[in-house]
Order: sequence, then C-alpha cells, then structure tokens
Amino acid sequence: MIACLDLEGVLLPEIWIEFAKQTGIESLKLTTRDIPNYDELMSERINILSQNNLKLKDIEDVIYTLKPLEGANEFLKWLKTEFQVIILSDTFYQFSKPLMKQLDFPTLFCHNIITNDAGIITGYKLRQKNGKAQAVRALQGLNFDVIAAGDSYNDIGMLKQADIGILFNPPKSVINEFPQFNVTKNYNEFKNELLNSKQKLLLKVTE
Amino acid sequence: MIACLDLEGVLLPEIWIEFAKQTGIESLKLTTRDIPNYDELMSERINILSQNNLKLKDIEDVIYTLKPLEGANEFLKWLKTEFQVIILSDTFYQFSKPLMKQLDFPTLFCHNIITNDAGIITGYKLRQKNGKAQAVRALQGLNFDVIAAGDSYNDIGMLKQADIGILFNPPKSVINEFPQFNVTKNYNEFKNELLNSKQKLLLKVTE
Repeated sequence: MIACLDLEGVLLPEIWIEFAKQTGIESLKLTTRDIPNYDELMSERINILSQNNLKLKDIEDVIYTLKPLEGANEFLKWLKTEFQVIILSDTFYQFSKPLMKQLDFPTLFCHNIITNDAGIITGYKLRQKNGKAQAVRALQGLNFDVIAAGDSYNDIGMLKQADIGILFNPPKSVINEFPQFNVTKNYNEFKNELLNSKQKLLLKVTE
Repeated sequence: MIACLDLEGVLLPEIWIEFAKQTGIESLKLTTRDIPNYDELMSERINILSQNNLKLKDIEDVIYTLKPLEGANEFLKWLKTEFQVIILSDTFYQFSKPLMKQLDFPTLFCHNIITNDAGIITGYKLRQKNGKAQAVRALQGLNFDVIAAGDSYNDIGMLKQADIGILFNPPKSVINEFPQFNVTKNYNEFKNELLNSKQKLLLKVTE
C-alpha cells in the first residue's frame, strides 16, 4: 500500500508565497489554490520574475531560510512506518531540494525548472501532464492500493484516481467543490484518517 | 531521474542465508543466485520451514539481530541527494521491516508473505510477476530515466529494462552471463558508476 502525498501545504510551506512575502511582490502570492490552471499560473510567475529581474539564485536564497511545517518531520517519520511513501508535487527539484534535505529526502516525483546561462528562469519542464494522477495510475498498475492526500486543486486528479483520497487543510473552495473527500485539519486527524483508510483497503483485499 | 536498487546483497545481507546460518539448516542457504526461478525457490523454502516447524516469528527473531551491510546507510544517504530512490526487492515487507527501519524506511516495492492463524508461513503473494522490471517500465512511462542496480538473476529483468543497468557485487556466474552490464564491487565504485550513468543520461536528454 502506498501513500502519495502532496508537498507544499502538507509538509512544506508554500514556497512561492514565502518568496512573495520576502520580496514584497504581492502578485507572486498566487498558487494553485487561486489559479487551478498550472500552465497559466507558472507563465504568470515567470513573467513577474523577469519583470523584477529575479533569478533562480534569489529564489534559492529564500528557500534556504525555510523550514518544513511544524510537526511535518515527525508526521513523515510515522507515515514511513505505516506505508510506502511517494511525494507527488508540482514544484521543481531545484526549489525543493534544500527543504527535502530537512525531510531526509523522501522519494519525490516533481518537475524541472529551466534556466539560461545567466541563471534567469526561462521556463519549466513538466515531467508529464497530470503528473500526479498519472503516477497514482502507474502505481495501481503495479498492483498497489494507493491513498492520496493533498490540499489544492492540482491534487484533485490524484485524489480521484487513488483508491482513497484525503484532503489536508484545504481552502474552503476546495472543500465545497469536492465534498466526496474527507477533510483533515491537522496531523493528528490526518494520521487517524490514514489509518482508517488503510484498514478499509485491507478489508477490501481480504474480502 | 530515479535509481532503482535491489535490497539484499546491495544494502542488506541475504536474509535467508543469515537465517540458514543461525538455524543450521544448510538447504535454506539457496538464493536467487542459485535458483533463478523464484517460485521454485520460495516453494522449496516454505517446505523446509514446514518440515522444521519454523514460523514467521522464528524468522523475525533472526532478522531483529541483523544490520545493514557496512557502509550501506552512508551510501543510501548519499544516493538520496543525487537521485530519487526506490528499492525494488523480491523480499517480503514482513521480513524486511526491522532492517528497513535501520535504513530510515526508503520507499520499498516488494511482496507479502502469507501466514495462518498459528503464524506458520503457508505461502506468499507476489505483487505481480516480474515486479522489478514492471516497476521500472512504469516509472519510464512517467517520463523518468531509470538507473537500476542489483546483484543477482532476479535483477536482470530490471537491469535490461532500465536506461542503464549496473551490477553490484554479483557472483561470477552473473558477470559471465551478462557482460553487457558494468560491474562494481564496493560502494565507492558503485557511487562513481552511478554518477557516470547520471551524466550519460543528462547528456542524452540535452542532445
């Protein structure tokens, strides 16, 4: 049984929001919670970076000051004793690495950012479209039961594809639009929901 | 880019061999190095256990005394900084858990053992046939480049399927039969070969 977890908002703070705060650029606070279309969101972000002459290095400098969410490390340590864990994220390896190190590098499937020789972000390379849902589907094809958990619009595909989907600390709009998923608001509730889900799937298997 | 690693012989000692040593049952020393057909090997092992009235608990008691191979923990820590890591093994979750804990629970795809109410091993459930090669194929379907490494016959399928396959400390028979794979004999050689392979794949991508 595999637990597929979103990264930002579940284990880490939202990197772009933190970067927006520290640079004071209000328009960078948009996330997938606000603009469900990821391509649109990323194009907008890259434009804003370019307008402000900000490079990958500037983002990295901020990321190095960040920490995982409070309790995230303990939660992840526990999770690995109960499930095989794969993190499915729409972030970029280049952004997440300093934070993944603090989480002891759980297995992460995400994307790559593209920079030019001057270190200016010129684009990004999605590993594939709908990468989260595709990953869940591939794992199911290997005969795994998959529990997926996330907090935003870009997680809904994987939550729907998974055998069981769980929302963790989502915005109200997501709760209202997708009432089929149980909602958890802190790591204790999340743990209980994960254990209940595991139990359900184990019962299904032995039926 | 993902590194798919075999477990026993690469990070851990061969669990069945250690169990054979401690119980003194010579016939349990057979591994996939000796009998390439896994079903045949496992049926034989389960027969021997039954003849000797040995239960899952007896195997677990031995496993709790084992440690990862010398240097395995440091190697794995390093590996996670360079690649996303998934362990592909033909062991069973029930056997490997005490040892996986010592490795800080890297993501593991393996199989389940089946016991009856008395704790006697009555069978096993392969997650799927050719599970290692299938997992590599699924990861490639998610647009990952995959480097696979292992030491025995049951790894050859995944080594052939991977973008690059590496042998780690294999028996002579495997070296002779599969000369297409580079051979490494310790973690330093293994690290160099992994970095070279990564470089090759990165060059391929940018071509």
